[in-house]
Amino acid sequence: MQICKAIFLLIIRISFMNSNKPLLEVCLSPALLHLYPTNDTITVIIDVFRATSTIVAALDNGAFKVIPVATVQECIDWGGRLPDSITAGERDGKVADGLQYGNSPSEYPTTFVAGKTLILTTTNGTRLLHMINNAAEIITGSFPNLDAVCDFIRKQNKNVLLACASWKDRFNLEDALFAGAVAEKVADSFTINCDSATACISMANDSDGAYFEYLKRGAHYKRLSGYGLESDMVYCTTPNIHPVVPILKGAELVVYSE
Amino acid sequence: MQICKAIFLLIIRISFMNSNKPLLEVCLSPALLHLYPTNDTITVIIDVFRATSTIVAALDNGAFKVIPVATVQECIDWGGRLPDSITAGERDGKVADGLQYGNSPSEYPTTFVAGKTLILTTTNGTRLLHMINNAAEIITGSFPNLDAVCDFIRKQNKNVLLACASWKDRFNLEDALFAGAVAEKVADSFTINCDSATACISMANDSDGAYFEYLKRGAHYKRLSGYGLESDMVYCTTPNIHPVVPILKGAELVVYSE
Repeated sequence: MQICKAIFLLIIRISFMNSNKPLLEVCLSPALLHLYPTNDTITVIIDVFRATSTIVAALDNGAFKVIPVATVQECIDWGGRLPDSITAGERDGKVADGLQYGNSPSEYPTTFVAGKTLILTTTNGTRLLHMINNAAEIITGSFPNLDAVCDFIRKQNKNVLLACASWKDRFNLEDALFAGAVAEKVADSFTINCDSATACISMANDSDGAYFEYLKRGAHYKRLSGYGLESDMVYCTTPNIHPVVPILKGAELVVYSE
Repeated sequence: MQICKAIFLLIIRISFMNSNKPLLEVCLSPALLHLYPTNDTITVIIDVFRATSTIVAALDNGAFKVIPVATVQECIDWGGRLPDSITAGERDGKVADGLQYGNSPSEYPTTFVAGKTLILTTTNGTRLLHMINNAAEIITGSFPNLDAVCDFIRKQNKNVLLACASWKDRFNLEDALFAGAVAEKVADSFTINCDSATACISMANDSDGAYFEYLKRGAHYKRLSGYGLESDMVYCTTPNIHPVVPILKGAELVVYSE
């Protein structure tokens, strides 16, 4: 009798779980963010070329923390206040005046970045991150931490918003492709009734996992190639070379640990 | 000498044309419209389920003109003023109170609609249409006039914006898929450096021309199926059954003729 009851409760529990999977949605541009609830939601900031790729590279290579800031001046000010800090950021593909380093993930190997604080200014990713103030958690994602992001959001059992930083509010291919790669991998654990997510999954299907090749058709590929940054784009689209999750604590991104 | 000059000018002309193909862009939501220039641009309003499908069906079946209006009250007012008019529009899948007919393309066969003026109120498509006031031309597109739209925009030799009506500003699958089907077909005649267009083309690739089947994964399919409107969706996704181009003249949509 006890066994029957246990089985019955298990069936009820499984039915409940299936019909009450958390929602997964994709926001394709910061200009559409107001259409998506973020309260009590895990929000994944996506800026594949290159902010969220550089952030996860620096943290996985031992950076103490990353502080994302909106302007070059804020970056300089933070750098003046914090010991063992690196100020970094680019404008138009070059290190911005007054800063020390750029926005390339390959600039931050362990030998350079371990134990330091990276203060990073980027245009699109940082802006989006600062637009969200009521999420359950804010993490960052890009291909170098694809599976780590998937594992994290599966375990939280909360609604998820994959938020693309895009390019000056315009939809971009690389952030949507990453959203699609995540959504495709975690689809069994979520209710997906969001056309943006469905379209991104379709793009991921169409790419057949050849992310870098797929993105050669994108506007950003053409722009960054013009700056000689092809190897950066290969780095940013290589899955799982930095299997950690950057998570926002206050104003700082640190490596998530259970 | 005259022949040489003519050939030289022809070569110059061809080179100029190749390097100066007009731009084709896709706007995925009215909330992103401000990011796209519409002046001196052919703008294609896309509201597949179902405004722009119904508009082209009515006009191809002999309607004198279609007047798109924003509200039910405007629809009633226009209907009171115009002889031989039909007032139509739905809210939540039912004919709106005070109006005569719905928003289904199959409601408007020649025997009913020929010679009449259809006054149509829809939420998303009409709103987008009224947001644009400086375009070279505004036409409407959906699968029933897919090739007619492609032929029209190819011949104009102007920049084109494919503008998706979406669903309350949220990206939707069917409008983006139609944009992709158009962009894929006319790609040789335009410069496409717009990631939205590239993503829509990717979706069209992924659909492999099975538009209705593809859209079964969309949120709108689920919503409209709930209203028993599956046959409407089949109609709206059947290519080239109404090979005409509705074009806006003042406040009225009429069939384009050269």
